Amino acid sequence: MEERFEKQMDFILEIDREKEIFRQNYLADGSRHENDAEHAWHLAIMAVLLNEYAEKNVDVLKVVTMVLIHDIVEIDAGDTYAYDKEGQKSAHEREKKAAERLFGLLPDDQRDSFLSLWEEFEKRETAEAAFAHTLDNSQPLFLNDAGGGKSWREHGVKLSDIMKRNERTAEGSRKIWNYMESLIRKHVEQKDIRP
Amino acid sequence: MEERFEKQMDFILEIDREKEIFRQNYLADGSRHENDAEHAWHLAIMAVLLNEYAEKNVDVLKVVTMVLIHDIVEIDAGDTYAYDKEGQKSAHEREKKAAERLFGLLPDDQRDSFLSLWEEFEKRETAEAAFAHTLDNSQPLFLNDAGGGKSWREHGVKLSDIMKRNERTAEGSRKIWNYMESLIRKHVEQKDIRP
Repeated sequence: MEERFEKQMDFILEIDREKEIFRQNYLADGSRHENDAEHAWHLAIMAVLLNEYAEKNVDVLKVVTMVLIHDIVEIDAGDTYAYDKEGQKSAHEREKKAAERLFGLLPDDQRDSFLSLWEEFEKRETAEAAFAHTLDNSQPLFLNDAGGGKSWREHGVKLSDIMKRNERTAEGSRKIWNYMESLIRKHVEQKDIRP
Repeated sequence: MEERFEKQMDFILEIDREKEIFRQNYLADGSRHENDAEHAWHLAIMAVLLNEYAEKNVDVLKVVTMVLIHDIVEIDAGDTYAYDKEGQKSAHEREKKAAERLFGLLPDDQRDSFLSLWEEFEKRETAEAAFAHTLDNSQPLFLNDAGGGKSWREHGVKLSDIMKRNERTAEGSRKIWNYMESLIRKHVEQKDIRP
């Protein structure tokens, strides 16, 4: 087996560990926490179905690939809860190192392509990155709504934290953000989210 | 919220159940069975990384979307183990019904597009479908190899069954099939697969 294929296989097997990185949010039925691989699969299908609502025209394959790989860094860096302010401070440095090691398993051209796609997601400047962030922020909220707001209650999440985290979510899709906002309002009324 | 968006959201929430459809194969570390959503995520990344080995040029977004949605039918039809001969006989009928109900949650244009993509996968006539099947057949084999052949041993799988199931795998990619064959030979020698 030549070197290129061997490197691709090394990466493909290494990322299997993403299936064991559990997130703070639950599945829609509330039965257990979701893992990063499941989350990424869900976002990728949402990218295919909802790109008509993206604020600017997006390259769908680029968004799909971006969301498929955006959390691979957590294999090394771990999941940092959206409302863990201390953790968020050091997350980027840890994730950058992780991206270099993990994408570095690939042949050079694919390493460069995945690294630059991940950095594009992180920088959040392009239409694709903006839309990918809208999906990334909305999917756990949709699941949390379906599950009755359990993870907000458990963590005592405040409305101001949610609004701060989502201050740029509308940049990717106003349509999706408007719907998210209506759900957030509902859960404030139901006292799942602290006002 | 207008009807189109509501239908899209209904589908997006319904497919969350794919995360609870467990397969016969294990994760690479052998710790637990893999579920369909994790499997589909893994195939989608493999489609991005390995399409250079597809026998014919493929539309990568089409392959990626195909593998992302190919097992959604199992939400209603359940997972049928590759070597369960009785189950395989009735699987297609059950899956067709499931496809109609599940993709039928979507707006008409997206329902038609996902239904036809799923049927294309099932019919296995196009370059994209052939390559998607190669990925679908190779990924559990790669995980099973990484995990030391555990699920072959547990089910007493015979070489002839594996070869029969894979008689068309090379159509999607000879390169990937050659590698799979080398792993199969190794596990016959190690007595994980019955000769």
